[in-house]
Amino acid sequence: MIPYTSGDVLGLVDTLDSFYHSELGLEGPVLLHKPWLAGNEWAYIKETLDTNWISSAGPFVERFEQACADVSGAAAAVAIVNGTCALHVALLEVGVTAGDLVICPAISFVGTANAIAHCGAEPLFVDIGPTATTLDPELLAAFLRDECDGFGAELRHRATGRRIAAVVPVHIFGHPADMAAINVAAADRGLDVVEDAAESIGSLYRGKPCGALAHVGILSFNGNKTVTAGGGGAVVTNDPALAIRVKHLTTTARIAAGFEFDHDAVGYNYRLPSLNAALACAQLEQLAYFVRAKRALAERYAAMFGSRFVAEPADCESNYWLNAVLLDTQADRDAFLHETNARGMQTRPCWRPLPLLPMFERCPRATTGVRAALDRAARLVNLPSSPKMASGLL
Amino acid sequence: MIPYTSGDVLGLVDTLDSFYHSELGLEGPVLLHKPWLAGNEWAYIKETLDTNWISSAGPFVERFEQACADVSGAAAAVAIVNGTCALHVALLEVGVTAGDLVICPAISFVGTANAIAHCGAEPLFVDIGPTATTLDPELLAAFLRDECDGFGAELRHRATGRRIAAVVPVHIFGHPADMAAINVAAADRGLDVVEDAAESIGSLYRGKPCGALAHVGILSFNGNKTVTAGGGGAVVTNDPALAIRVKHLTTTARIAAGFEFDHDAVGYNYRLPSLNAALACAQLEQLAYFVRAKRALAERYAAMFGSRFVAEPADCESNYWLNAVLLDTQADRDAFLHETNARGMQTRPCWRPLPLLPMFERCPRATTGVRAALDRAARLVNLPSSPKMASGLL
Repeated sequence: MIPYTSGDVLGLVDTLDSFYHSELGLEGPVLLHKPWLAGNEWAYIKETLDTNWISSAGPFVERFEQACADVSGAAAAVAIVNGTCALHVALLEVGVTAGDLVICPAISFVGTANAIAHCGAEPLFVDIGPTATTLDPELLAAFLRDECDGFGAELRHRATGRRIAAVVPVHIFGHPADMAAINVAAADRGLDVVEDAAESIGSLYRGKPCGALAHVGILSFNGNKTVTAGGGGAVVTNDPALAIRVKHLTTTARIAAGFEFDHDAVGYNYRLPSLNAALACAQLEQLAYFVRAKRALAERYAAMFGSRFVAEPADCESNYWLNAVLLDTQADRDAFLHETNARGMQTRPCWRPLPLLPMFERCPRATTGVRAALDRAARLVNLPSSPKMASGLL
Repeated sequence: MIPYTSGDVLGLVDTLDSFYHSELGLEGPVLLHKPWLAGNEWAYIKETLDTNWISSAGPFVERFEQACADVSGAAAAVAIVNGTCALHVALLEVGVTAGDLVICPAISFVGTANAIAHCGAEPLFVDIGPTATTLDPELLAAFLRDECDGFGAELRHRATGRRIAAVVPVHIFGHPADMAAINVAAADRGLDVVEDAAESIGSLYRGKPCGALAHVGILSFNGNKTVTAGGGGAVVTNDPALAIRVKHLTTTARIAAGFEFDHDAVGYNYRLPSLNAALACAQLEQLAYFVRAKRALAERYAAMFGSRFVAEPADCESNYWLNAVLLDTQADRDAFLHETNARGMQTRPCWRPLPLLPMFERCPRATTGVRAALDRAARLVNLPSSPKMASGLL
């Protein structure tokens, strides 16, 4: 563990510098997370071009969907153009409509809250846990017990009188939220759980892969993710009927009617092109290796940062999508960010907590507040986590 | 011209069969529109893979945007994940909000009306013209004069009291709508025009390319379009400030704030991946050739079908994205569709008119009705129009 006294982060930065540039032998800037195209990417993409299957149908879209189902242990998956759009339709499919509230953690990538807003709904924020970086199941249970009335479609937030339509736990940085406890708390109120697994492909919660731990979940294949489609996403579910509805809704709600172009609902054009699916298929073949490498890297960071390292929860195996450390103060964080980035090591702060963003600052919160999120976000730093760089440790 | 008597379409089908299979020497099924990857597609995509620029930033996204601006004669373009999403943000940028009405033609691909609905607004249908397949400028002018009150942001539909926020002319099948007349009618009421040029890349209206004939327009690069990105779209405009706002809104409304991830609005994840932009860049290099080939094909169809051929409007050069013919009756159309498809020639009917779709059937219409759209859609057939097939005529 690196000696580090509050107010003096230079030792940390020197140690990281030596780790990256001497031990791992990296040259040039060390990026936060860059794609690694080390497998069949070219071959599969060339195949889509050679066979003219570049658009939203074709064998690679189906292979991608099967791979997404397999990797998340789900019965079915639907290819979507990105994670935000996947979350939007997943929320629509569990019945989120304009004016509803949807519970989400106070810290997440802004896409989580945006997708809620795209339904015409608003996020309602619950704080993160005392050690974790995501939705605290006890605060969720207390909120549902003490601040809500009714059940299922009639569940209401007492303070605003508004309907609560779903809860969206997020596996921040790849670390699984406590889904068993969240599912129990939600079931007690007949509340739908939509699992935001955008960051946690390949992570395990009590031995089971993230993605299909609730009624419906979503994956992301953005360029900065553990595996990528350039841009891409998926809805995963154990409910085949829901998958059929999602595919329908995301392909302009077209229905078979002989030669006619009939459509039976306001649909979306959210289908992932085959070109991107082909890239993702090649990437998914390498997922287990990437996760092994990323976990080896995390082990090294844990050794360096000790208790300041944001470790995976008990009974979980994180993909360590983004490694994170908690410095002692916001001033330390700022000094660390400036020094590392000035020396070509790309670190970055936590996303600004959602309740602090101007478009969400007036959204309701549990009365228990969001203090842990505000405190932790002000001290957290994400560290370089690319699989290629990490592979040097295997 | 092929002899054709109502009730007997077999002669038409035989002639087409001979044209495709004997004269053009095509083998196997003749598809309605399939992509043709004849240029630098693989080279550019390989470059994105080799340089790791596969996601939503990188040189090909910028090249794609410049090419979109060039091809539509616009000052600026913004890469978007597809045409429907491009239209959605274009409508948001001209101020369309929940509860508004947006005027559109009674015939279009469903994406036009869906994008309006995605704003929380509703389409208001105006009929197509007596000869054209799209929005009739005289009916539009009459509707705005006789059935609306107010001006600009206060323009209201008298019958419903609702605000009219924009009008969306669509260049159906690649044939330009009468933009000069539409722009004048709209300007008289201070109404924003959003040009849906999804089908008309490379088409000319009075010598000027479609896309930037109004305040803002959109292009599509879907797999079935004249040139493709697998899936893709663009917003094009002569208003650089609008382009900056669209780019902001479609990239999660992120703002520069040092290392922080700040966002100042509910944004979207609508940015086109570089992988798709690279494909489109290669395709756009071939656009002029594809259009020349498609126009040569259209000339042949025109000779075969005579006055039944749906020709480009006066003073326009259509890209003839999809060739169309009007048969004498719906029964003839049905017989023609069945016979051609049974013999491996992929023809298809017009899209079902938007006011007949269940989710839009209760939307308001101009009191002049939508009779021309219903009549013409029931008799129209789209014919195979792929650029590769057409190139045999050059």
